[in-house]
Amino acid sequence: MADDQEVAVARAGEDADSARALLERLHDPARVLALSDGVFAILITLLVLEIHVPELTQGHSLNQALREVRPSLVAFVISFILAGMYWVGHRDLFALIRRTDRGLVWLNVLYLLPLCLLPFAAGLLGRYDQEPVALRIYGLLLVVIAVMRVVMWLYATNRPHLLWQRLDERQRRAGLAVNVVPGLVYLLAFLVAVVAPGVSLLIYAGVPVLYFLSITVLRGSRKRDQEFADFT
Amino acid sequence: MADDQEVAVARAGEDADSARALLERLHDPARVLALSDGVFAILITLLVLEIHVPELTQGHSLNQALREVRPSLVAFVISFILAGMYWVGHRDLFALIRRTDRGLVWLNVLYLLPLCLLPFAAGLLGRYDQEPVALRIYGLLLVVIAVMRVVMWLYATNRPHLLWQRLDERQRRAGLAVNVVPGLVYLLAFLVAVVAPGVSLLIYAGVPVLYFLSITVLRGSRKRDQEFADFT
Amino acid sequence: MADDQEVAVARAGEDADSARALLERLHDPARVLALSDGVFAILITLLVLEIHVPELTQGHSLNQALREVRPSLVAFVISFILAGMYWVGHRDLFALIRRTDRGLVWLNVLYLLPLCLLPFAAGLLGRYDQEPVALRIYGLLLVVIAVMRVVMWLYATNRPHLLWQRLDERQRRAGLAVNVVPGLVYLLAFLVAVVAPGVSLLIYAGVPVLYFLSITVLRGSRKRDQEFADFT
Amino acid sequence: MADDQEVAVARAGEDADSARALLERLHDPARVLALSDGVFAILITLLVLEIHVPELTQGHSLNQALREVRPSLVAFVISFILAGMYWVGHRDLFALIRRTDRGLVWLNVLYLLPLCLLPFAAGLLGRYDQEPVALRIYGLLLVVIAVMRVVMWLYATNRPHLLWQRLDERQRRAGLAVNVVPGLVYLLAFLVAVVAPGVSLLIYAGVPVLYFLSITVLRGSRKRDQEFADFT
Repeated sequence: MADDQEVAVARAGEDADSARALLERLHDPARVLALSDGVFAILITLLVLEIHVPELTQGHSLNQALREVRPSLVAFVISFILAGMYWVGHRDLFALIRRTDRGLVWLNVLYLLPLCLLPFAAGLLGRYDQEPVALRIYGLLLVVIAVMRVVMWLYATNRPHLLWQRLDERQRRAGLAVNVVPGLVYLLAFLVAVVAPGVSLLIYAGVPVLYFLSITVLRGSRKRDQEFADFT
Repeated sequence: MADDQEVAVARAGEDADSARALLERLHDPARVLALSDGVFAILITLLVLEIHVPELTQGHSLNQALREVRPSLVAFVISFILAGMYWVGHRDLFALIRRTDRGLVWLNVLYLLPLCLLPFAAGLLGRYDQEPVALRIYGLLLVVIAVMRVVMWLYATNRPHLLWQRLDERQRRAGLAVNVVPGLVYLLAFLVAVVAPGVSLLIYAGVPVLYFLSITVLRGSRKRDQEFADFT
Repeated sequence: MADDQEVAVARAGEDADSARALLERLHDPARVLALSDGVFAILITLLVLEIHVPELTQGHSLNQALREVRPSLVAFVISFILAGMYWVGHRDLFALIRRTDRGLVWLNVLYLLPLCLLPFAAGLLGRYDQEPVALRIYGLLLVVIAVMRVVMWLYATNRPHLLWQRLDERQRRAGLAVNVVPGLVYLLAFLVAVVAPGVSLLIYAGVPVLYFLSITVLRGSRKRDQEFADFT
Repeated sequence: MADDQEVAVARAGEDADSARALLERLHDPARVLALSDGVFAILITLLVLEIHVPELTQGHSLNQALREVRPSLVAFVISFILAGMYWVGHRDLFALIRRTDRGLVWLNVLYLLPLCLLPFAAGLLGRYDQEPVALRIYGLLLVVIAVMRVVMWLYATNRPHLLWQRLDERQRRAGLAVNVVPGLVYLLAFLVAVVAPGVSLLIYAGVPVLYFLSITVLRGSRKRDQEFADFT
């Protein structure tokens, strides 16, 4: 009878072990990252489909041909760099994350949704780069993406059991700022598009430049606070 | 001679080991997941190609432009969320699966087949969102996908040697219901499309909402039965 | 001085170790599989782009709409199943392979080349399913793919240091047959296309059926010779 | 009190450990490779979209049909092999790399940018294979890609902490040459395109041939210096 009990205890232990193992598999971020990296890779590669082969007539110069595809090319480069920034940010966030729960899995899917609309918005911007409406749709999309990033950041950093390591309040606020600030800038570009389309386009093109400047400066000044210096 | 025998035994053991190792490699789900995640990632990104850049004329307002792409956008969002649900379900199923055999590998490929037609059906729905035929083709596809999900669920859970852990009858039935119910709902939407196209579209758009509600409710009520509460 | 020698020996050992580690990394099949799975995933998803949204006029029935896209759909399904067979074959081959060398890496890239033309050939077949020329181009592509598969099989199985386990002559011949036979069948379909386009199309559609039958039969008859029974 | 100190020391050790673990995760090349392999896979598969299904009229011969798509097909094959060479080079470079820092992550994204324009340039070349402008744009893109490869090589090999193993000066120069030489050849093709378009096209088609010859020769002559013999 003691044996029976031992077997039962052992079995319960086994069940608990296998239940825990199942939970670990269900919470493993591996496939979330596989899907996300796949989406980012396709996204930046699909952007090229919006650059149409121009009509070349004999005597056409290289400059003329390039001038024709210039708006598409500008929209391509801006969108590519933005997607690159989003991917780097996603990689930084998930470097903090040890487990995913159902909420985070779905937030990630819902974050990919507006991201997947980027080729459409880039195509629109490439074709109507002077039109306020195209600039506003582009800005609107970037604002929605920024909102989703903030939601993911708050959701994940609020749940220490999902993280490798609990973040302190200062780190959370710094990470939040990194996500909120570009959202506000894009909101400005959206609002300004009607009265000054040129300024709006300049903002979209300028954010990456500011981004590169800021990470260079940040890196110089706060070497030690690596966690959120790297979440930029 | 004893040595010879020992060597022979050792070699037979080695052969058995290497045969077993080969079987493990042949049954490793890794590449099945790589292919599937790739397909899901491309699928949700390709959906955007069905949203065409609208013609913008000067004086066109943001609302007008958005109204023009609205049907495409609705088809995009519905299809995106559906694909997200399928991916989450695939991830949950394969969290139970330890090994794949040839049958499961092929069932997975045959499951991806109707899934890959989703961008076509979404394009059709985006262009003819009032036409019963478009709504029926969309519904037909969702029914076929649901059937394939049920077949995969039955195939895998009927073969305990493919699983990390045997499921009991109650868990299998719960998982089955989770796959059969949406299939029946889509069948209803398919049948109703001729007489009431609006209702049909409403069902396609409503299922994700019901899904999110149900997983929230399920989570609250059956915390402990994590295995199938999580297969939703 | 003895110490110096020891240090020198240790360093030489370290160098040899790190050189060996570098070789292992250079020969790791991981990225070859990542690229190949990516290509297969995109391939089968891109095939859908060749199915164009049909024009629907009011009063159009479901049957009429489906009849319109039928040739595209047939080309899609045939090509999808073929790509699935190629992927399963690729997975089986690489289950035998432990290391890749430069030759195998490049053979794999050159195998992916004709494979990537499949959406083009499928689009051609979907649009001109009665035209001998379209059927011949489709067949020609399948023959080229079959040739590349044979070359890869011979290259890899001829180099035991690339394999987990050396294959005996009988296994190599069986694996060769599995790759040569479909090639010959497609060659027949290519040759027959001019005089009997219908027969040619039937062959393309019939091979997957024969394939599924044959793996079922093979599995029943030679359970033990798992290695090449599984390379089908 | 001694206990308190020990706990404090242990905690500091833990903090240092977890900070180090975070750094390792942030510097893990895994997702950089996932993104890059995804981009390469999509790139070579998207190239096919530039080959348009030709118009077939009855009585059209296979040769006529093939002749019609010949320029597109040539542009496809050249671009495919080039992308294959870039992928092999990328794989060789990252076989040396143990950790990525923010600089390398971004250089890699900026390397993928011109790479993603390859389908556009291939489409242009396939349509206007005699036009100097198309040939120059193609060449320009290859020069930009070559420049990015050189920058990445210099960046990574200059930072021994990112590498598995420090490279000596001779190895670095050899790797540099491997990247600089094709860039110069493409620059030549770019310059020569205006006066001799045929020569330019010949160079694009010839580089892969030279590449395959050179790696065969290199392999024969310097078996031992595997590290950079393999970076070709």
